[in-house]
Amino acid sequence: MDPRPTTQMAREIAEQPEAVRRTLDALLPLRPRVAELYGGRRRVLLVARGSSDNAAVYARYLLETHAGVSAGLAAPSVATHYRSRLDLADALVVSVSQSGATEEIVATQRWAAECGAATVAVTNVEGSPLATQADLALVTQAGPELAVPATKTYLTQLAALAVLATALAPDPNALDGHLARVPDEVAALLAEDPRLDEAVELVASAETVVAAGRGLLLGTALEAALKLEETTLRVARGYSYADLRHGPISVVESGVAAVLVAAADGPLVPAMTELAADLAARGARTVGVGGDAAFAEACSRHLRGPDLPEALAPLAAAVPVQRLVERVTARLGLDPDNPRGLAKVTQTDSHS
Amino acid sequence: MDPRPTTQMAREIAEQPEAVRRTLDALLPLRPRVAELYGGRRRVLLVARGSSDNAAVYARYLLETHAGVSAGLAAPSVATHYRSRLDLADALVVSVSQSGATEEIVATQRWAAECGAATVAVTNVEGSPLATQADLALVTQAGPELAVPATKTYLTQLAALAVLATALAPDPNALDGHLARVPDEVAALLAEDPRLDEAVELVASAETVVAAGRGLLLGTALEAALKLEETTLRVARGYSYADLRHGPISVVESGVAAVLVAAADGPLVPAMTELAADLAARGARTVGVGGDAAFAEACSRHLRGPDLPEALAPLAAAVPVQRLVERVTARLGLDPDNPRGLAKVTQTDSHS
Repeated sequence: MDPRPTTQMAREIAEQPEAVRRTLDALLPLRPRVAELYGGRRRVLLVARGSSDNAAVYARYLLETHAGVSAGLAAPSVATHYRSRLDLADALVVSVSQSGATEEIVATQRWAAECGAATVAVTNVEGSPLATQADLALVTQAGPELAVPATKTYLTQLAALAVLATALAPDPNALDGHLARVPDEVAALLAEDPRLDEAVELVASAETVVAAGRGLLLGTALEAALKLEETTLRVARGYSYADLRHGPISVVESGVAAVLVAAADGPLVPAMTELAADLAARGARTVGVGGDAAFAEACSRHLRGPDLPEALAPLAAAVPVQRLVERVTARLGLDPDNPRGLAKVTQTDSHS
Repeated sequence: MDPRPTTQMAREIAEQPEAVRRTLDALLPLRPRVAELYGGRRRVLLVARGSSDNAAVYARYLLETHAGVSAGLAAPSVATHYRSRLDLADALVVSVSQSGATEEIVATQRWAAECGAATVAVTNVEGSPLATQADLALVTQAGPELAVPATKTYLTQLAALAVLATALAPDPNALDGHLARVPDEVAALLAEDPRLDEAVELVASAETVVAAGRGLLLGTALEAALKLEETTLRVARGYSYADLRHGPISVVESGVAAVLVAAADGPLVPAMTELAADLAARGARTVGVGGDAAFAEACSRHLRGPDLPEALAPLAAAVPVQRLVERVTARLGLDPDNPRGLAKVTQTDSHS
């Protein structure tokens, strides 16, 4: 039993099985409309900031590795400040914003349409500017989110983006059996994990915290770092596996805690296992999330991940990370529900 | 007079005016071949890691804002580990690697060609696998680089990428007058700057260092953070302006030093000035590089930037950053030429 008063963030983490289930139920029937809108286009461009941007990173890998569709992330300032005119007639532009009201994202979606793109909005707010102005809105069913750190809106964005990417795959139904299991896998990861306390202590006592992942799980690692920054008010850098290998691994030494996220299968687990061993050899301590048995063995502490194929693992692997972050924040005497300096609807520019 | 023995890194920083001049002289005549290779294609995809990746970020913005060409960064693991097959017949793929021997980048270029892309290699080594296997090689003329942190190879990559982007612009010669001045601007920024000492002290004494920039100067900020990480062996996070605004600004408080990079003109200087003021209000101390008078005024310390339009400012704005990094490293008693744990030819995977 956890003697702390339950935080709003913890309550919203616990609501995720139903939030994801509602979202999949609402959006899976829209796959044919996504495919129709894509039509003969050749690529997907994602527009997002913050946690939504980390969800977009997952979508990018899922589109390229599962659907065989070229995908990338847009640079909103090209639209909003440089006001460039690009030819996007061959692109489906997918804008992701939980509020659907971030002016920069709404403006970028409008610009994309003017440049010839078809537009899809992924947002939690029906009737928001982003939803009403898109060719098609994929409205997530997270319900109102009150804690400042996004949890259930983030996880439902991942679900919506999985619907979108599978809609463009050669066989849209190939992952359906696994998709149907996602809500239960999320629920299973909410059960008490006796190893959580030790992982919390490891991260809370570190001087420096980094997070790393690769490929389909990269977005999960970036989100882990962003959540830790937002709630613990300390710099926590998220690295792609490759970026960490290309230089910054030299910063890793005793006093560093690394949160490593991996899937249970797929081509990248051996590399993540090797990274865990390498970081340990440099004196860092690691908290592994997911992966296989060898990966768990190579990490100082380990939290169980979902029993899902790599393509869908991010839809549940965020849960142990969220629980870790919520507990670390409380352990540091901070309030995860309302970190200093954050507003719920974020605007990139104070006057735009 | 600087009483320290000159480091290799400092010598290579000083060689940059000639390195950039040689590179522009060698590559500007190749513009028609770049344009011919691009032909009726619709987008540019950049492949790079580490410092080269930061150069690619500049290329992406320059292509979209100056040439009106859609551009983005490839995810090499999609090629090397997931072995996805994408349709890249509409893409020009530009691979950037100083050594031209990073196996992951060479493999990704090969994959891109198999997917139908035209390929350009930007590398400092003539005859390297990347150069010989590309449809067109833009070989930078930096000469051998011995210090581990890339300086002159990075700056000449930016020059090569400016050649590439202008080759695809409606008027390839529109920036030529300014391009011709770049070597002299680089040289001017090598002159003793009496304000450098104070900036070095500010960064060296900070508990946490971050860097931020936006748009065309974002890559310069990311490179500042990467260089600081590589040489000072401490986590130094590079943020886009927008990412910092969307949450992580809550980590900024007293004890944080922020290196902010801006151009002298363009639509983003007011936002960067506002960011400097905001960071100061949170108790951080800032070192501004470049920008206009208001930006300089808003920063705790300021280093002069180049007298170049925003589109080309990155080709020289890196110089004060490099000098700052080199001096901070020495001030901390470390050897910038050979930081722990770094090899000159980087491989993402230890066995591939």
